[in-house]
Amino acid sequence: MNILVLHGPNLNWLGKREPAVYGSTTLEQINSHIKELARELGAEVECFQSNHEGALIDKLQTAAEDMHAVVFNPGAFTHYSIALRDAVASLDIPVVEVHLSNIHAREEFRHKSVIAPVAAGQISGFGPESYLLGLRAAVSLVQSRRKTN
Amino acid sequence: MNILVLHGPNLNWLGKREPAVYGSTTLEQINSHIKELARELGAEVECFQSNHEGALIDKLQTAAEDMHAVVFNPGAFTHYSIALRDAVASLDIPVVEVHLSNIHAREEFRHKSVIAPVAAGQISGFGPESYLLGLRAAVSLVQSRRKTN
Amino acid sequence: MNILVLHGPNLNWLGKREPAVYGSTTLEQINSHIKELARELGAEVECFQSNHEGALIDKLQTAAEDMHAVVFNPGAFTHYSIALRDAVASLDIPVVEVHLSNIHAREEFRHKSVIAPVAAGQISGFGPESYLLGLRAAVSLVQSRRKTN
Amino acid sequence: MNILVLHGPNLNWLGKREPAVYGSTTLEQINSHIKELARELGAEVECFQSNHEGALIDKLQTAAEDMHAVVFNPGAFTHYSIALRDAVASLDIPVVEVHLSNIHAREEFRHKSVIAPVAAGQISGFGPESYLLGLRAAVSLVQSRRKTN
Amino acid sequence: MNILVLHGPNLNWLGKREPAVYGSTTLEQINSHIKELARELGAEVECFQSNHEGALIDKLQTAAEDMHAVVFNPGAFTHYSIALRDAVASLDIPVVEVHLSNIHAREEFRHKSVIAPVAAGQISGFGPESYLLGLRAAVSLVQSRRKTN
Amino acid sequence: MNILVLHGPNLNWLGKREPAVYGSTTLEQINSHIKELARELGAEVECFQSNHEGALIDKLQTAAEDMHAVVFNPGAFTHYSIALRDAVASLDIPVVEVHLSNIHAREEFRHKSVIAPVAAGQISGFGPESYLLGLRAAVSLVQSRRKTN
Amino acid sequence: MNILVLHGPNLNWLGKREPAVYGSTTLEQINSHIKELARELGAEVECFQSNHEGALIDKLQTAAEDMHAVVFNPGAFTHYSIALRDAVASLDIPVVEVHLSNIHAREEFRHKSVIAPVAAGQISGFGPESYLLGLRAAVSLVQSRRKTN
Amino acid sequence: MNILVLHGPNLNWLGKREPAVYGSTTLEQINSHIKELARELGAEVECFQSNHEGALIDKLQTAAEDMHAVVFNPGAFTHYSIALRDAVASLDIPVVEVHLSNIHAREEFRHKSVIAPVAAGQISGFGPESYLLGLRAAVSLVQSRRKTN
Amino acid sequence: MNILVLHGPNLNWLGKREPAVYGSTTLEQINSHIKELARELGAEVECFQSNHEGALIDKLQTAAEDMHAVVFNPGAFTHYSIALRDAVASLDIPVVEVHLSNIHAREEFRHKSVIAPVAAGQISGFGPESYLLGLRAAVSLVQSRRKTN
Amino acid sequence: MNILVLHGPNLNWLGKREPAVYGSTTLEQINSHIKELARELGAEVECFQSNHEGALIDKLQTAAEDMHAVVFNPGAFTHYSIALRDAVASLDIPVVEVHLSNIHAREEFRHKSVIAPVAAGQISGFGPESYLLGLRAAVSLVQSRRKTN
Amino acid sequence: MNILVLHGPNLNWLGKREPAVYGSTTLEQINSHIKELARELGAEVECFQSNHEGALIDKLQTAAEDMHAVVFNPGAFTHYSIALRDAVASLDIPVVEVHLSNIHAREEFRHKSVIAPVAAGQISGFGPESYLLGLRAAVSLVQSRRKTN
Amino acid sequence: MNILVLHGPNLNWLGKREPAVYGSTTLEQINSHIKELARELGAEVECFQSNHEGALIDKLQTAAEDMHAVVFNPGAFTHYSIALRDAVASLDIPVVEVHLSNIHAREEFRHKSVIAPVAAGQISGFGPESYLLGLRAAVSLVQSRRKTN
Repeated sequence: MNILVLHGPNLNWLGKREPAVYGSTTLEQINSHIKELARELGAEVECFQSNHEGALIDKLQTAAEDMHAVVFNPGAFTHYSIALRDAVASLDIPVVEVHLSNIHAREEFRHKSVIAPVAAGQISGFGPESYLLGLRAAVSLVQSRRKTN
Repeated sequence: MNILVLHGPNLNWLGKREPAVYGSTTLEQINSHIKELARELGAEVECFQSNHEGALIDKLQTAAEDMHAVVFNPGAFTHYSIALRDAVASLDIPVVEVHLSNIHAREEFRHKSVIAPVAAGQISGFGPESYLLGLRAAVSLVQSRRKTN
Repeated sequence: MNILVLHGPNLNWLGKREPAVYGSTTLEQINSHIKELARELGAEVECFQSNHEGALIDKLQTAAEDMHAVVFNPGAFTHYSIALRDAVASLDIPVVEVHLSNIHAREEFRHKSVIAPVAAGQISGFGPESYLLGLRAAVSLVQSRRKTN
Repeated sequence: MNILVLHGPNLNWLGKREPAVYGSTTLEQINSHIKELARELGAEVECFQSNHEGALIDKLQTAAEDMHAVVFNPGAFTHYSIALRDAVASLDIPVVEVHLSNIHAREEFRHKSVIAPVAAGQISGFGPESYLLGLRAAVSLVQSRRKTN
Repeated sequence: MNILVLHGPNLNWLGKREPAVYGSTTLEQINSHIKELARELGAEVECFQSNHEGALIDKLQTAAEDMHAVVFNPGAFTHYSIALRDAVASLDIPVVEVHLSNIHAREEFRHKSVIAPVAAGQISGFGPESYLLGLRAAVSLVQSRRKTN
Repeated sequence: MNILVLHGPNLNWLGKREPAVYGSTTLEQINSHIKELARELGAEVECFQSNHEGALIDKLQTAAEDMHAVVFNPGAFTHYSIALRDAVASLDIPVVEVHLSNIHAREEFRHKSVIAPVAAGQISGFGPESYLLGLRAAVSLVQSRRKTN
Repeated sequence: MNILVLHGPNLNWLGKREPAVYGSTTLEQINSHIKELARELGAEVECFQSNHEGALIDKLQTAAEDMHAVVFNPGAFTHYSIALRDAVASLDIPVVEVHLSNIHAREEFRHKSVIAPVAAGQISGFGPESYLLGLRAAVSLVQSRRKTN
Repeated sequence: MNILVLHGPNLNWLGKREPAVYGSTTLEQINSHIKELARELGAEVECFQSNHEGALIDKLQTAAEDMHAVVFNPGAFTHYSIALRDAVASLDIPVVEVHLSNIHAREEFRHKSVIAPVAAGQISGFGPESYLLGLRAAVSLVQSRRKTN
Repeated sequence: MNILVLHGPNLNWLGKREPAVYGSTTLEQINSHIKELARELGAEVECFQSNHEGALIDKLQTAAEDMHAVVFNPGAFTHYSIALRDAVASLDIPVVEVHLSNIHAREEFRHKSVIAPVAAGQISGFGPESYLLGLRAAVSLVQSRRKTN
Repeated sequence: MNILVLHGPNLNWLGKREPAVYGSTTLEQINSHIKELARELGAEVECFQSNHEGALIDKLQTAAEDMHAVVFNPGAFTHYSIALRDAVASLDIPVVEVHLSNIHAREEFRHKSVIAPVAAGQISGFGPESYLLGLRAAVSLVQSRRKTN
Repeated sequence: MNILVLHGPNLNWLGKREPAVYGSTTLEQINSHIKELARELGAEVECFQSNHEGALIDKLQTAAEDMHAVVFNPGAFTHYSIALRDAVASLDIPVVEVHLSNIHAREEFRHKSVIAPVAAGQISGFGPESYLLGLRAAVSLVQSRRKTN
Repeated sequence: MNILVLHGPNLNWLGKREPAVYGSTTLEQINSHIKELARELGAEVECFQSNHEGALIDKLQTAAEDMHAVVFNPGAFTHYSIALRDAVASLDIPVVEVHLSNIHAREEFRHKSVIAPVAAGQISGFGPESYLLGLRAAVSLVQSRRKTN
């Protein structure tokens, strides 16, 4: 089972910026934890980060070919990138939206996700643990799809 | 570790009503799966459902005494019960909000949760799996709190 | 044919409060008129009133078992109880929403019904006559359903 | 007792267009059923349809002379014709607003009726039965007015 | 100097309906007063009323040929007839908007005039006197135009 | 008959500023024309201008004692001075609101007058002529009041 | 003189929860202070708290029989319980709305009270002192009513 | 192939009014160009203009009988005539909405078309050319429908 | 203990205007009652009224020097004077906002107070009694501040 | 005559994703049809697609040098890319906005185009045919510009 | 070169109130720094502060006579004084709007300036430095105007 | 002292496009003036422009390492790029937002900056001078930071 873990803008700065909001763990450490859990669950993960909306769309399009699910933290694009939403909507595989912070408890404009209506589900507020829960959700969705088919 | 699993209005009808939206698993089956995973994670859970907003508030208040976390599916109260929000906000223990369906993909009025801003985090859209992910999140939050203290 | 007539909050005060808005007929008198017409139409009615949202949900859930239709005046819950809406939406039998006063001619916030989109239809503004028209509508809906099946 | 039954724009196409929304009964059939029930209730009805807002206003003005009540389905004019609203408001006789479909369950812009605040009451969602319930309501309103005088 | 006085929907009922809002003077009496003042000011007036939006547009278009100004009470069309607005905007002669009642002191939806932005000016709230002031304004506008040319 | 003509903020600059919007007539010239027409109509006018909201309120309060009507151009205070609105509402004598420019044809925020709902009527868009029409309206209102008493 | 003091949801937790917002005084202590002042003012008070909207409505209805006024802190129900609003509106005796915290200085959604438009008046922001001021206001209202009768 | 070309209110004034907005071509000239292109594309067109909403609805209803498509410029009705929208929605043949000016570049209230959601597509901003493009689109839609059947 | 009692615009007209809304007591009588109660509570009060926003700001600034609290009825400035809000926010002493009428039960635009978020609390709806309750609140706030220091 | 055909994000997936919404034709096939028609009309086209907003802006800027018009399908950027809007606004050559689907018939947020107010015109809803109509419109615009110069 | 520096309401309290928001520098110190820089830039400045909206308008009107530019901090009037906006709009000389704090980073209602659309430009957020930058901007504007003439 | 000057989308076209809005100075000339003033103030500047949101984020992240402040003109990204906002918010060094045109005097959607709440301050409306004022502000902020440390 192949799973793409996609990180949106500014997430390469995790652990380096605003630890009060985002914690002190770096993106590399998060990726390690994700890969560790993936092995445990029998999945293969590829991790990719970009500050470029277009690069994230390009990557999502390639996922259609060899991935079974996506765990996606769209960062600030969550709130306005309809282009990313369309890319997610076009994918046949499940996309799990994750957020480190509880976006519903922050500024008003962060409450709304344009991605969520086309994602399988959303997990937000548990710090790096959000990714691990997202990975579990993704694996579970792939497994239940296989059962139904 | 004691964890309260709280189900809001109409959830006692799960599996009996609108399977297209909520699936065919009953609340009893969900509770079984939750208890099973709880044992695995070394936690004790109590499950409680009510169609009465006041009864849910009463229950949340008692949780302050002997529970370490709450996994809460507020059902339709999610969208307007500020009284439940206040009860959640008053609790010192973490409350994880869970939803069976992806509330962000349903009618506009279901996109907004008045509970979310005072919850630790939110998990929505994975069917009964949402509860299991919520339980894992709750256990993880209790453990990391213990570490910090 | 069994029909549940459900009265929401404050309706037990009918005839005792604000006659300028709601008229001087009491709930008991309305129930008598309903039962009289029901006999005429060959139907059996049960009448139930509560000021408790949860009690109304509980009652709606039991209606699924032995009722063929519901005539429902949700009172003030009309405007915000999504929990009642969900209970109505889950019922397979038709629910006819009735109002004594013309809610569209009162304060702005009373113009919107969160129940109406999931009800079979809405009758509002004819005083106690609204219930009788609602009963006729309910009987007619049950009969035409029987014809189609 | 004379009652005017007024049909707004596109209702002459009933039974011919979009049966999924409006059913397969034609306007002629509805008028027959209305007249049949009118005879039963001891009332005389005149039926009139137009796609012209002005023609409906002209007709409403004549109703002031020889009608005791109006049963009015304003069709799409429901949502924006303040001119029709003013004509209704000027009438001393009761006007019962009826709709075939449940307008509160359709597109957002159909939820609001500019006619309703000046009508005696509103009945919506019961198909052709809405007219029959509206006729009963109109007859009942005329009778209770006669009693009070 | 030729001036068209145009009356919108329901104004033919003036003096016959809702005297509390519109007074007891009939449209015929108003037209007489207008003509009297017109003679005094050396102007010729033509009066026209219709409940049909299209008929008012047709009339406005003919005014372009032989009128020097229009005094226009659009009645309820004031608030939504963009078609009338466009007809007014296309006229090269000044159009003075008048209202019997003070539309800014009535229901919220009557505060906004879609005609006003393309009219020369607006006079509202002085009962039949509004028309006389409107006529004076129209005559004055024609005179000052003549001066400038 | 005594009439107060009240000019709001910046109107002392008339004829000196933005002639494209407000014309080239000065406030002194306008006052002359008003007084001339007043004499013709058998009325006495007092003219007062201030850039101070409080001074305008003070003046309005004194008008209660010896004036029979007020012609008031509130200038920019039209759009937000609820204090002036309250002062107008407290007066027993009619207040006619006038504007040089057509406020309904300017920026969106100028469309709304907080004064209008408590004024007798509103005249806007006829340049200095607005004051003269306003004076006529005021005189007419005082005369018809006298007739009714 | 009998006065009902009614406490809404979560107020039984006063002094135990969020002291930064609500202070450290318990509900029992507040009730004592209220009773003390009542004695001083020659009034009898009954205190009642519930987390159940329906129970508060039931209680308000009984107040109609033997109470002369109500001092009511609706807690979170302040912001959405139209059912409570209707119950208050139906009472002939004055209802004084009180709040411990200044609701106008908290989150946007707490600024609006659906109860206030039907209450005699509102006192908010003085901590437990709000109840004492409310009691004084209630006593004063009853006394001035007695004077007028 | 028969195609109805329908022109809404004020379009009979094309070329005579506001050439800065709508150009100097008359409706007759436009109709000639349309017929010329129709011949070229092997289609027969009928052209109809009215300032009356009702007349346009009447015409649309007759189109159901002998037309294969409609090219419709609803003029100002674009923005509020839900009655026209319903008539369009009831037609089984494709309706192509066209506009001379770019409605999205004009006043805010012209950006929204109530017709567009039920039209096949919309072409706006190319002057008389909009009709020609609309005719091509209509012909192409009819042809591809024929292919699929 | 020195307390400033500040009255906003039009309050000098109390008892003289709109007794239906504001009662028949004059501002002088209210000031007398305030002073009487102040003596009873061991406080000294200074009363000041102005129709000038700037004069009220000037006065509030001087209060910083020799007053311990302010009882402030901002009148119509309540709803828009951010300048007064800023002056209140800058004061270190508590400011109690009072209103004669229940502003939450009047026009929509009076529900919002721009002063309230920076005041200690708000009392509204008890007529002249509002000032007396406000004085008690102010005295109580000063006393509890003294205790804490 | 040189014309740039610009395709926005996700359009490289045409024919591969969501055929129910966008049809089964691929972008390559569309480009072929466009080139074919271009030859027929005597124009030269260059086709360019990118998922990167910045790359589309870069391309638009180069168009200023050697292109006579642009046919632009901005995809999801239609709804929020003000940067693209500014680039379009800066171009001296006409830009024709095209959409495969009828954006006015889809989700609310797709109804608004931030590009449209600065485009020459908009064509939407005709599938791949939209591009061909857009090309004709572009050619026609260039030709009529040449005539005027 | 003469420049007027105008300070709005409460700015006379600078350095004395809320240092956390506005810093500890007094208005006198700011005026000194401004004058110092003015001398350096070869300009003469007059400084004026008032809490009275009317006094600020009066002052702005006199500036038309002998000033070449204005540096204006409207304080709280920024957000609602349309009267000041009109005064600024009438001035032929450039007005530079300055703010000590970053108004765009404060409460929502402070984000909007009714003055800004008629000012030359806006500088906000740099504390007392904002005035110095504003003075430089004003001098630069006057100089470039002189160059163009 | 090192300062990054960052130019957003379309600014490379300065002087080449829409001179009426943005002036005729090119970006190269602006960069020269900035560098000249920088030398005068003892600072080193690096200038960078991109039409790619992602490239601007990448650049801002590198600024954290060797820059002391940023002068940033986000162009059209000002109004929607929350990703840029997050990048700015993460920087420890001050970011001064500058705009050539007065964004508060242009289209409504340009009034709001999503960057401003996290910038040190904003300067808008002074053409190329805005950058020079921004540079002075940045230098001043760095100097006062150094003083405080």
